[in-house]
Amino acid sequence: MSDFPLPPGAAIGVIGGGQLGRMLALAASRLGFDSVFLEPEPDSPASRVARHTIVAAYDDPEALKALAAIASVVTFEFENVPASAVAQLAAMGIEVAPGPLALATAQDRVAEKTFLNANGAPTVAFAAADSAETAVDAVTRIGAPCLMKTRREGYDGKGQRWVEHAHDAAAAFEALGGVPVIVEAAADFVRELSVIAARGRDGATAVYPLAENHHEHGILRRSVAPARVTPAMADQAERIAARILSGLDYVGVIGIELFEMADGSLLVNEFAPRVHNSGHWTQDGCGVDQFEQHIRAVAGWPLGSTTAVAQVEMLNLLGDEIDAWPRYAAEPETRLHLYGKRDAKPGRKMGHINRVRPL
Amino acid sequence: MSDFPLPPGAAIGVIGGGQLGRMLALAASRLGFDSVFLEPEPDSPASRVARHTIVAAYDDPEALKALAAIASVVTFEFENVPASAVAQLAAMGIEVAPGPLALATAQDRVAEKTFLNANGAPTVAFAAADSAETAVDAVTRIGAPCLMKTRREGYDGKGQRWVEHAHDAAAAFEALGGVPVIVEAAADFVRELSVIAARGRDGATAVYPLAENHHEHGILRRSVAPARVTPAMADQAERIAARILSGLDYVGVIGIELFEMADGSLLVNEFAPRVHNSGHWTQDGCGVDQFEQHIRAVAGWPLGSTTAVAQVEMLNLLGDEIDAWPRYAAEPETRLHLYGKRDAKPGRKMGHINRVRPL
Repeated sequence: MSDFPLPPGAAIGVIGGGQLGRMLALAASRLGFDSVFLEPEPDSPASRVARHTIVAAYDDPEALKALAAIASVVTFEFENVPASAVAQLAAMGIEVAPGPLALATAQDRVAEKTFLNANGAPTVAFAAADSAETAVDAVTRIGAPCLMKTRREGYDGKGQRWVEHAHDAAAAFEALGGVPVIVEAAADFVRELSVIAARGRDGATAVYPLAENHHEHGILRRSVAPARVTPAMADQAERIAARILSGLDYVGVIGIELFEMADGSLLVNEFAPRVHNSGHWTQDGCGVDQFEQHIRAVAGWPLGSTTAVAQVEMLNLLGDEIDAWPRYAAEPETRLHLYGKRDAKPGRKMGHINRVRPL
Repeated sequence: MSDFPLPPGAAIGVIGGGQLGRMLALAASRLGFDSVFLEPEPDSPASRVARHTIVAAYDDPEALKALAAIASVVTFEFENVPASAVAQLAAMGIEVAPGPLALATAQDRVAEKTFLNANGAPTVAFAAADSAETAVDAVTRIGAPCLMKTRREGYDGKGQRWVEHAHDAAAAFEALGGVPVIVEAAADFVRELSVIAARGRDGATAVYPLAENHHEHGILRRSVAPARVTPAMADQAERIAARILSGLDYVGVIGIELFEMADGSLLVNEFAPRVHNSGHWTQDGCGVDQFEQHIRAVAGWPLGSTTAVAQVEMLNLLGDEIDAWPRYAAEPETRLHLYGKRDAKPGRKMGHINRVRPL
């Protein structure tokens, strides 16, 4: 096992070489760390700023051996890391952070909501189903219209559909592939918020100010932070974050999506055991951003300040919206964060901008 | 020749793979660029965050061919780039920025001071010498005590010595290796300041606020920025920077070291045709730092904002001072920038910290 805190010069291993991995590598570099990636795609965004990239499947045993030979700790940029990979790394004495409990909980929407409710982090009502018949029961119990999602996988609105009537439940179940699902009550929320938080190896926690998020077609378009919230709501979010982090004995940054309800209460939509798109504003809005915070946490360093120093509007650049870079480059208040992806497929996250104003 | 502005995805070539190159690579990555380095040392700080590193001498023709095959433009992290390398790149249609005139002027202290005085940027009195006899003449003319420096090479106080009396001039000349020298009058300055400025491909200029610098044994220890100066002095520094930039038909960031004299006037000590240690404060004190500004300029992008958003004290970490990283990591106001160098030799620049306070 590695001794923590890891000194500068150590290598941070990261599973997944997309834009989140790339920004983790940039943050790690600032602190003097090397980074090493495991990523099946060649020429990935992260590979171009990393010391090493092992191009292989996430669960390739030889690749994991190579990763363990270089990295002093391993983290990841996406929650669907195979449990077998984490187990193999652990067996070789390499700690994965956040740990197996956080991953297993985040990978199964039923386990996630069960955990949340058991830890004082309220969610919408939900029910599990694993057949067309139980899907009808679940929808009847929860009440249509409601949302049916696959229990595992799915992101950016994929792997889910609205069920308008109980008699559509069986068809929805089949349309989602006949795999185990969760049925969630519709949340009659007034706003979507999120909170980015972190927990260090010493159990200390640090919580960023809330962001207000705007989605389109299930994909985050825009975040504004710090969001205008009452102190009571900020406290509520901090308490929820603290409960989740301690309940999972968590190490690293977590992104928690919240629904603000009409009565001022917060429900947890879901959490991502990693840096989160709605936390990109911290790059230009806080002294220590979510990427450096995550590296600090997994390396066993003290957490950094989460105080906002500016007001930020974060805008995702999807597909050919990246072509507007000359306009954004000319805006004095705008900071560009482009991912170097070669191919601007429709809806693909190609970069983001942060428009910065004084607080 | 490349078409400017370069789009994200293009590769920026950099000659020199030390910490300045590393920080240029990190800035280039944020804008979606790849970076490719030419650097003779293996495992250089920049190589660990670059897409490609060509490990070869700076003037290796095959290496320069390889660089030209990948890079859309080439820049450098140090001023002693061989003129032959720049000429070979130009012959292959690859532009080097800043250009040959800036390099040639910066590489020869006599050419530099001659250029500065001819362009309305005053310096101390100076004289050239290329023999023991002419060195005696030069010291007699300038008046001892004065500073004798090699005309070429030398940095961080190396390649120079004080001459206390005219009769020490010949010995000093020999001690400096018997190479051509410059003799400079002692500057009776009250403060050392510097100004970081940039010029884009469109001729636009942008000037950062002044920094106040403190050296020890010829090495920068500490910069404080924005320095407290009168508006008149800030204007004077801006005018000097503008004259130098236009006189050199410059593209990129320049670091200009200044002496503040008792009468409030500014003399130019020297300029570096590159990003500069005394500009590291901009990483945490300005929206667009000197590294991104340099990449913007050489890529033909519009220059970014140089407005200070915070007060910064920059401290270089030399040699084993890097071992104090746990203390700095725990300071909420401190941002770490560590270079990942393997070996903490005495006096070696291993990293720096920026202590940030509200303006």
